Amino acid sequence: MNGNRFGRLFQVTTYGESHGPGMGCTVSGVPAGVELDEEVIQRDLDRRKPGQSMITTSRGEPDEVSIQSGLQDGYTTGTPVGMTIQNKDARSGKYEPFVTAPRPSHGDFTYSAKFGTRNWGGGGRSSARETVNWVAAGAIAKQVLEQSDHDVQIKAHVNQIGDVEAGPVTFEEILEHSEENEVRCADPEAAEEMRDLADQYQTEGDSIGGAVYFECRGVPRGLGAPRFDSVPSRLAQAMYSIPAVNDFEYGIGREARTTAGSEYNEDWEFDDNGDPVPVGNDHGGIQGGITTGQPIYGEVSWHPPVSIPKAQRTVDWETGEEKEIQVVGRHDPVLPPRAVPVVEAMLYLTVLDFMLLGGRINPDRLDDRPGEYDTPYHPSSPRND
Amino acid sequence: MNGNRFGRLFQVTTYGESHGPGMGCTVSGVPAGVELDEEVIQRDLDRRKPGQSMITTSRGEPDEVSIQSGLQDGYTTGTPVGMTIQNKDARSGKYEPFVTAPRPSHGDFTYSAKFGTRNWGGGGRSSARETVNWVAAGAIAKQVLEQSDHDVQIKAHVNQIGDVEAGPVTFEEILEHSEENEVRCADPEAAEEMRDLADQYQTEGDSIGGAVYFECRGVPRGLGAPRFDSVPSRLAQAMYSIPAVNDFEYGIGREARTTAGSEYNEDWEFDDNGDPVPVGNDHGGIQGGITTGQPIYGEVSWHPPVSIPKAQRTVDWETGEEKEIQVVGRHDPVLPPRAVPVVEAMLYLTVLDFMLLGGRINPDRLDDRPGEYDTPYHPSSPRND
Amino acid sequence: MNGNRFGRLFQVTTYGESHGPGMGCTVSGVPAGVELDEEVIQRDLDRRKPGQSMITTSRGEPDEVSIQSGLQDGYTTGTPVGMTIQNKDARSGKYEPFVTAPRPSHGDFTYSAKFGTRNWGGGGRSSARETVNWVAAGAIAKQVLEQSDHDVQIKAHVNQIGDVEAGPVTFEEILEHSEENEVRCADPEAAEEMRDLADQYQTEGDSIGGAVYFECRGVPRGLGAPRFDSVPSRLAQAMYSIPAVNDFEYGIGREARTTAGSEYNEDWEFDDNGDPVPVGNDHGGIQGGITTGQPIYGEVSWHPPVSIPKAQRTVDWETGEEKEIQVVGRHDPVLPPRAVPVVEAMLYLTVLDFMLLGGRINPDRLDDRPGEYDTPYHPSSPRND
Amino acid sequence: MNGNRFGRLFQVTTYGESHGPGMGCTVSGVPAGVELDEEVIQRDLDRRKPGQSMITTSRGEPDEVSIQSGLQDGYTTGTPVGMTIQNKDARSGKYEPFVTAPRPSHGDFTYSAKFGTRNWGGGGRSSARETVNWVAAGAIAKQVLEQSDHDVQIKAHVNQIGDVEAGPVTFEEILEHSEENEVRCADPEAAEEMRDLADQYQTEGDSIGGAVYFECRGVPRGLGAPRFDSVPSRLAQAMYSIPAVNDFEYGIGREARTTAGSEYNEDWEFDDNGDPVPVGNDHGGIQGGITTGQPIYGEVSWHPPVSIPKAQRTVDWETGEEKEIQVVGRHDPVLPPRAVPVVEAMLYLTVLDFMLLGGRINPDRLDDRPGEYDTPYHPSSPRND
Repeated sequence: MNGNRFGRLFQVTTYGESHGPGMGCTVSGVPAGVELDEEVIQRDLDRRKPGQSMITTSRGEPDEVSIQSGLQDGYTTGTPVGMTIQNKDARSGKYEPFVTAPRPSHGDFTYSAKFGTRNWGGGGRSSARETVNWVAAGAIAKQVLEQSDHDVQIKAHVNQIGDVEAGPVTFEEILEHSEENEVRCADPEAAEEMRDLADQYQTEGDSIGGAVYFECRGVPRGLGAPRFDSVPSRLAQAMYSIPAVNDFEYGIGREARTTAGSEYNEDWEFDDNGDPVPVGNDHGGIQGGITTGQPIYGEVSWHPPVSIPKAQRTVDWETGEEKEIQVVGRHDPVLPPRAVPVVEAMLYLTVLDFMLLGGRINPDRLDDRPGEYDTPYHPSSPRND
Repeated sequence: MNGNRFGRLFQVTTYGESHGPGMGCTVSGVPAGVELDEEVIQRDLDRRKPGQSMITTSRGEPDEVSIQSGLQDGYTTGTPVGMTIQNKDARSGKYEPFVTAPRPSHGDFTYSAKFGTRNWGGGGRSSARETVNWVAAGAIAKQVLEQSDHDVQIKAHVNQIGDVEAGPVTFEEILEHSEENEVRCADPEAAEEMRDLADQYQTEGDSIGGAVYFECRGVPRGLGAPRFDSVPSRLAQAMYSIPAVNDFEYGIGREARTTAGSEYNEDWEFDDNGDPVPVGNDHGGIQGGITTGQPIYGEVSWHPPVSIPKAQRTVDWETGEEKEIQVVGRHDPVLPPRAVPVVEAMLYLTVLDFMLLGGRINPDRLDDRPGEYDTPYHPSSPRND
Repeated sequence: MNGNRFGRLFQVTTYGESHGPGMGCTVSGVPAGVELDEEVIQRDLDRRKPGQSMITTSRGEPDEVSIQSGLQDGYTTGTPVGMTIQNKDARSGKYEPFVTAPRPSHGDFTYSAKFGTRNWGGGGRSSARETVNWVAAGAIAKQVLEQSDHDVQIKAHVNQIGDVEAGPVTFEEILEHSEENEVRCADPEAAEEMRDLADQYQTEGDSIGGAVYFECRGVPRGLGAPRFDSVPSRLAQAMYSIPAVNDFEYGIGREARTTAGSEYNEDWEFDDNGDPVPVGNDHGGIQGGITTGQPIYGEVSWHPPVSIPKAQRTVDWETGEEKEIQVVGRHDPVLPPRAVPVVEAMLYLTVLDFMLLGGRINPDRLDDRPGEYDTPYHPSSPRND
Repeated sequence: MNGNRFGRLFQVTTYGESHGPGMGCTVSGVPAGVELDEEVIQRDLDRRKPGQSMITTSRGEPDEVSIQSGLQDGYTTGTPVGMTIQNKDARSGKYEPFVTAPRPSHGDFTYSAKFGTRNWGGGGRSSARETVNWVAAGAIAKQVLEQSDHDVQIKAHVNQIGDVEAGPVTFEEILEHSEENEVRCADPEAAEEMRDLADQYQTEGDSIGGAVYFECRGVPRGLGAPRFDSVPSRLAQAMYSIPAVNDFEYGIGREARTTAGSEYNEDWEFDDNGDPVPVGNDHGGIQGGITTGQPIYGEVSWHPPVSIPKAQRTVDWETGEEKEIQVVGRHDPVLPPRAVPVVEAMLYLTVLDFMLLGGRINPDRLDDRPGEYDTPYHPSSPRND
């Protein structure tokens, strides 16, 4: 409604501007009994954070998460998990020239047009910094899934930067290699070319677009609530919440346009368990809006980062002057490498939400014995004493 | 939640299977005081309905809408508008072979896997017949917008079928020509080629994919609720609710991948009113998730219809047999032509919802004088006497 | 949002005015595999409908429900159940005097103040006729619960009309006797006094208030999502949706004010299964907003029906005149007798919703085997052939 | 859904346990341009906090609120306001005896039955400490209303403790006197009796119930979305979210039972502006679920605090033993005095939400000029530099 909440049974509510005091999120709908490792969250935040390499911005955000609620001795209690992340490295002064003179293709103008004002330091609420909340929440969803009876695996990698495309890689290769280089591309040769290309654009004071490929394995069949809560419609909403996305496709994607039905259709055969299974996966794991049990895969495209040092022209709506501006500072030349953990987080959130809605994970407690009252975890070592 | 509701303030709730007694929808959040023309609704239903031409299925659905509530003397009263559309031409018998032997790439298997059963006549709930509800609701949204103080224009046309692409056309040409031919393509020459291609696939017992281009003009700046209710995220959800969609892009779309920031970024200048306006519209009318006031445009891709007469193989999960099936009957060889009114309907619903959420149209009454009690419309000619 | 939807996972969306073409509702979130008996629905509608006795209005509404979707051979399919109920006995003409001259204490003025217009025949959307939808939906919820693994029992009866109060009755007596008399009071002597009192008010052209007591047995412990979706908060919302309600209390209710903690508190002991059980049920089945497994009980109070034949004064906002009016016609002298099935319906809807949210009933299918694809019901006798 | 969110357009999402690291809430839907005074929030928190007087618990919670986001130079920006409140005075050790031996009439058992575990220090998530979030959020709603074009006034006072009832007081007296004594009763004589009674129960190691009366003036006519979002249904949900509530009534309340229609009904006359106005306000400001513009008033009853020093009996579900326990510590002998600011907060939240939904306050910005981009507040003194 107000754009600050994601999810239906597994709900994430966020706040925060890039240069405000802090970011934070509340994760509701976490089943009880999940052993929550703060370090898993921190590790994902570190993957997202700026300054990881030459081709990501050098802003010094430590991004330390602090869990405020929802735990007893390290296990979730079914009540909401509040998390806060302080903003440390906020130097707003240099954004003063843009207060009434919007930067090209940023949200400066639209936020002011909507609200009549805006938090103008950094990108304010429109900053990609907000995704720190999503990654933190996604890391909780990941731990819920990992400790459930299901074996869901989710991974993404960068498959295109500019005109450099990754070669074909298997899911196993993505799992193994995507985090080995700074562009997060599972094809090492393409990765090197991508990095060089990004470097080149950065050197020129410019930036470049790119794309991420993702895959979700082990998502059980029968999930999704057609028509308006179909799996593709919720995946699309999730991916398009990420800033600077211009395209989302799944399965055969855009090639669908030139594909014949006789090619696209997949016959049914029996698998080893005697279950019907489609021959092939052009359908991307979804038929009729519902999962088939086959891998879900797709691609997301980003336009280039709009903060570039090159001189650009704008107008000042207060003074009525036209003027030239330069967006100096610490900015990524390309978005997909740091977007990889964000895509994964949104997938964890979306998949877990569907699993809760589809009754595959009990909403109250992970061990699925509702109404039994058990002994609380480790009463002898109370957390707050 | 259960997938049968779309929208936040302007809410559409639907029911119905293709071969059940009837379809229906409830439209909540219609401001009072809109003169509702049932014929406008009917006209859009007729654009969507089967049997319009050689290249659409010849099923004989009259699709007559009946308004059940929410009106006083032809004007909306602010209470929900219930609509029903009876199913007439339902011959379920021929679907009996598929009850436990799923058709390739349909929702047959996934619906059964989710629910353990399904309405197996036609496509049941997974049928595109459901979109009859969306078109009826969209026609109400259109009338609300038309009678508001705003000048919103929405139109779509088919811009690709197989490898035939429409040439460049202006929005005015789309408005003028897209309904002049049976493929709903505003480029008459491409339209002819598209029709021939569709005919050819149909003759071969096959089908083919395609795409629709859409544009929304006059959407005021400042709409959209970042981050999770940003305009792109809600448009994407809307488009991906339409069956058989594999790709949604807006603005420069997939080309974003190979675009440099210096090309993508659009300087600001003053327009004739002294308002900042971006030079160009690569951004597709949206920056930072919020509308700029420029046209919103994008493209949607469909995979080919999966109901094809060609012989295909499947398995019967009850008997354990493999077998060959043929999906005979009345089916479209290509989806985009009949999807055009559906895309437009989802756009009307989405845009109106954002305008209500952004306070541009009063939710209670169109004339924006809440708390004044007025004279009801035409008390001398009561509707129900 | 727009007030036409109730429930979270089990969602009812309604439309309809008392004198419009028809009423209808869409029930989403019905698990698949429930054998739905249209007669059970009809029987509850008959209990609610006018003209059952001397003390209820004699309007001739047959209230025939027609199921439009969501079934295969009499079993639910997990897709929404659409229901329609035509309005038959609508004579709007006699309401013409009230178009701009509001009846005392009706919604005439407030509806017009909100929307600037209203459907002025009968009570329009504010009419208790709308509850026909709730009773129909509640009868579906009842059947879901009855066919589940749980043994939930819900029943209400009239426990006060004017100053006549029912004596103490057990739940078993309510189950057995409440439907035996026209006031629906399980205490036969009080029932007779209540009927006489109602008759007397009716004879005088007047009306009188009253109350309903309800009880829910077998609701499993551990339901409710504190804080804002606690069981009391959702029960209260449900009961206060019923027109003309002025009070809702549960457990010891208003007596809480003068009760000491040492009286109120209930020690814990072990029950026969070795489970902790509170000694007593002053807590009304709910502690900390969550069910204890003990019976949930409470009371709802109605103000008198506002449609009374006695002369009353009003003003005409169009003419500026003060004038005398009489609300002649067919109206109940007291609301609780016909409200009993409405209260029960809202309880069924609320309890089932909590059971779905708490994972006690699988949202996709009643038999709790998600992902298994089964044989559909009776493929040899297709419904729609 | 998960019980941690309140509101529709003005949404409050909360987290926190009484003995966890901290409490927090995110307030979404705050229009831009509201000058937010942190001290107003703090003042309301101080009214709610423990240790204010002899008859409230002496726990030493400073309850200092810290705003994390949503502001530019002290004015709201339309983005969510995140607030955190650290827990300081948490001594969990003394709750160890209750880990598996539930305190009578607390949420100890039900939380464990629902989740299989719980945060057992203090009351965990079931603690009234959670209402600190509600009061903080309500103080924001209050400031939005105060700075709007409307003149809404909301105030509550304690009107009953045990058998001591306040005498009749006017709204002006409530405004003036309710905060002058420690029981927050606007009738000074009754206040003294109430305090003595509370002291007496406390001295005896016992506690006692009571009630709060509230009134909302200046709420414009035409608000409320019948049927399920009617004003009474949302008020009831709000009031019943407050812990330990057993009764909510509005208007004539429970007396409705014995009231005749001819007494209850209120004729219409013209007011000084020539608007229809009801003679009297037995209807409590609401007709047909929609506001009439008359004051909205009602009463809420609390059962006695369940934490009492008197010896009580319970069982330990781990050891299987029956045992005697004493809930020693710092606890209120009566709830209404500290509940007054909580009731007011829930009223501010509910009323503002209805005003946003009814289009009386623009959701994007308080000054109601959507689409104009203005100068941000005080660009020369950036907050975060």
